Amino acid sequence: MLTAMPPDAVEPRPPVSSRPPPAGAALWAPSLDRGSALPLSRQLATALRRTIAEGSFGAGARLPSTRALAAELGIARSTVVTVFEQLAAEGYIAARPGSGYFVPAALLDIDDRARGSAAAGAPRPMSRQAALLAGLAAPPPKLPRPFDLGHAEIDGRFIATWKRLAARALSGRSRLSWSYGDPQGEPGLRQAIAEYLAAARGVRCRPEQLVVTAGTQQGLSLAARVLLDPGDTAWVEDPCYRSAVDILRAAEARIVPLPVDQHGLDITAAAHQQGGPPRLVYTTPSRQYPLGMAMPLARRMALLAWAEGAGAWIIEDDYESEFQQPARMLPSVQGLDRAGRVIYLGTFSKLLFPSLRLGYAVLPEDLVRPFTAARHLADRQSSGLLQAIMTEFILDGHFARHLRRMRALYGERQDFLAEQVARRLGGLLDLGPRDSGMYLVAWLPPDRSDNAAAAALAAAGITALPVSALTLASARPPGLVLGYTGHGEAAMARAVERMAAVLEAKPV
Amino acid sequence: MLTAMPPDAVEPRPPVSSRPPPAGAALWAPSLDRGSALPLSRQLATALRRTIAEGSFGAGARLPSTRALAAELGIARSTVVTVFEQLAAEGYIAARPGSGYFVPAALLDIDDRARGSAAAGAPRPMSRQAALLAGLAAPPPKLPRPFDLGHAEIDGRFIATWKRLAARALSGRSRLSWSYGDPQGEPGLRQAIAEYLAAARGVRCRPEQLVVTAGTQQGLSLAARVLLDPGDTAWVEDPCYRSAVDILRAAEARIVPLPVDQHGLDITAAAHQQGGPPRLVYTTPSRQYPLGMAMPLARRMALLAWAEGAGAWIIEDDYESEFQQPARMLPSVQGLDRAGRVIYLGTFSKLLFPSLRLGYAVLPEDLVRPFTAARHLADRQSSGLLQAIMTEFILDGHFARHLRRMRALYGERQDFLAEQVARRLGGLLDLGPRDSGMYLVAWLPPDRSDNAAAAALAAAGITALPVSALTLASARPPGLVLGYTGHGEAAMARAVERMAAVLEAKPV
Repeated sequence: MLTAMPPDAVEPRPPVSSRPPPAGAALWAPSLDRGSALPLSRQLATALRRTIAEGSFGAGARLPSTRALAAELGIARSTVVTVFEQLAAEGYIAARPGSGYFVPAALLDIDDRARGSAAAGAPRPMSRQAALLAGLAAPPPKLPRPFDLGHAEIDGRFIATWKRLAARALSGRSRLSWSYGDPQGEPGLRQAIAEYLAAARGVRCRPEQLVVTAGTQQGLSLAARVLLDPGDTAWVEDPCYRSAVDILRAAEARIVPLPVDQHGLDITAAAHQQGGPPRLVYTTPSRQYPLGMAMPLARRMALLAWAEGAGAWIIEDDYESEFQQPARMLPSVQGLDRAGRVIYLGTFSKLLFPSLRLGYAVLPEDLVRPFTAARHLADRQSSGLLQAIMTEFILDGHFARHLRRMRALYGERQDFLAEQVARRLGGLLDLGPRDSGMYLVAWLPPDRSDNAAAAALAAAGITALPVSALTLASARPPGLVLGYTGHGEAAMARAVERMAAVLEAKPV
Repeated sequence: MLTAMPPDAVEPRPPVSSRPPPAGAALWAPSLDRGSALPLSRQLATALRRTIAEGSFGAGARLPSTRALAAELGIARSTVVTVFEQLAAEGYIAARPGSGYFVPAALLDIDDRARGSAAAGAPRPMSRQAALLAGLAAPPPKLPRPFDLGHAEIDGRFIATWKRLAARALSGRSRLSWSYGDPQGEPGLRQAIAEYLAAARGVRCRPEQLVVTAGTQQGLSLAARVLLDPGDTAWVEDPCYRSAVDILRAAEARIVPLPVDQHGLDITAAAHQQGGPPRLVYTTPSRQYPLGMAMPLARRMALLAWAEGAGAWIIEDDYESEFQQPARMLPSVQGLDRAGRVIYLGTFSKLLFPSLRLGYAVLPEDLVRPFTAARHLADRQSSGLLQAIMTEFILDGHFARHLRRMRALYGERQDFLAEQVARRLGGLLDLGPRDSGMYLVAWLPPDRSDNAAAAALAAAGITALPVSALTLASARPPGLVLGYTGHGEAAMARAVERMAAVLEAKPV
């Protein structure tokens, strides 16, 4: 360490009292703001602490006398005395009888040493995770535009309802828990979610198996924490939701992509081709992301049977089933699971609006305790206010009505976008399955690059997620994932025109 | 695997067409609820799927004819036909021309295998974390009572303000972001927090260094993720905030407790006594938790100089400085840090109410990117609505007024509790430093056990956190940490009476 210190820190220093005090300190006077809400005494203390900590005075510097400073600042001397006494108690200054106040030399000795080391560039070690995470940095925020994914329609009716329920939750009569609540989620909300999931998604669970989360992202992060050690194998569908891969990658899992066919994930084929069984498999059975097909029942049963035989876990991400047409909605894999192998994840952020940050995880009994403990350590619990509003939103029937309204609206928007694409870009783009939901896949001619197309479209102010960006290893034709749920018809029509201009201008 | 299968799954099975269909399926008819909001077709489909998936029919079972089932249920035959076609498309049933619908044998073969394996008890492997976490399970929720810690006073004025701001945020004119926002936090809120922290806590940061979190718990969890690999050393103060130790333990850090003296953590003494430097040190310099002393300036400077020299990080948990008397409030260590070694954590949950779940982390520049990425993967972002309300709460000046009001109220409550304890238990309990804040430490006579006292008080409906429960290795006299912020005077007076009865009844 000594080599890193500047010479003045290692040379013996003369005793403080023998050194001439630097001139600056004794003349010091800060400018105080008489219009501020902060008392002048507090402003003076703050300015003095800052100036000393910055080292502006130098070690041993003598402060102005309380009388001189009071006169200079036009404040009562007693105010200055009080401030000086306070700073002396804090260790910023020291009194010497008969000589007023000084900056203690020991204080700035230390500070000099600190600056010396800083110059030498001491190491700044982080975790392995930090390096991993730096490569997974969050996308910079941008203004919504067509065809961003996952956006919601927020209309006056929804806002009015939400506002009324917020007011109700914030009235004296509500059961809103201001204090620490259950890390697993408020019991009333868990009950309401369990009933909703049983009716709408065929999920079978007791409220005791359900944990309220901040959304699917948190649900998957916590599941990874509870299930995966570094080096454990995780199977994912290929192509796959990007954030899911990122979360598993950050958990240092060995990720094995399983190509999906026209019926989604085929566990039997995967189990034959791959080596030993994984710790878990992440799947989107009700609507494969982003290709859009549903996994038929026989494959679901095969998946469950395999998981039980292999001692593996199934993470079922049921991310937007509610916006499929009810007749085409398959009930969850979780509801078929008799062996307690499925972790079922869902989110209200997709169903209502993205910045809500409320979701749920349904867990096998033996995972509830470690998962809840992980939630508690991660961020304690979800907001009491949001939980209170959401509970009322479900129990009053708004949730079911909202889903019905949005399903109809999103269906119309999908039809509109499909018509626009067919009319304007029919020769170039081929639309994938249209089992409703929140997005469409538009396939490009096989000789085009979807990455290049997406880049050209981005430059024209249009978001189009290339299938390649979601693909891990399997060969896929070039395609663009287009979200329509949060975008009005006029905006989409204009965007399709621009899209046509970009894609037809030159073969990208 | 074969050994685990029941005999009927491995024996060759006769072709389906040659087996007599089980009798039950052809007679099956569910009960439908005509008063339900769910259409009868959907109820029928749900009941049929469930019955098949439960295996009630057996492989190859023939379903009732659409005509018979329609007559039995009193619904249109076309409805039954539509439902059967849908379930056939899903793979639940199969049509054979001229013979109606059957349950496919392949489906239940798989199911039988699954059940066979389940009986054999396949392994349910979890992560190392899961075992750790199970030992750190969250405390069960309970009704608030004296002297729970960290509770807030929620009065009519606060609720009215919060309600008005929620209504404003939920009006069409607000800048509330319904969509995905910045994982680092909304820029307006970060700006407001940075300005507040500069004025109130002497924190020096640009809004770009600040990450909005779900509270200190999340801030520390993310810091641990970015800074610590398993086996890395973390120094903590002894005694220490329990959740902080739990989070570091769950990060698999090697935890070294450093006993604090009457001025808090002494890094110079610690650095001499311990082996190599740690990756980080966790500290509560403005008010040591739970002993309540502030770390003087010279020690703060020494801490910073040591961290820079040792290449270590300082996590400064500034958990409740705002409720100390302003004259005694020391500015943050972060504000003195020139070398970028301090991660500064704070939370609005302590300052407003616990279930709010909003806080902030101020980071050295090089930690911002990995920390934000970790936040994004953990749960994407904080709620847009809560961020919008909080921003207005600060910018409109409510925050400063609320802190002033609560500081006065909590000061009164502390005085009240101290008087009650002195009056009623003066011979038994000795109160620690009273630099305001949110709790008091009451020291028991040295021959008492604080754990036993806490248990006896808990049985009498009183929370008193024993200092022993927060102590890792150093010897401390027995003491009880008492929170008063969320408890009215009448309730506290009654609780002190009960406390006296318990503690005086028998020496525990």
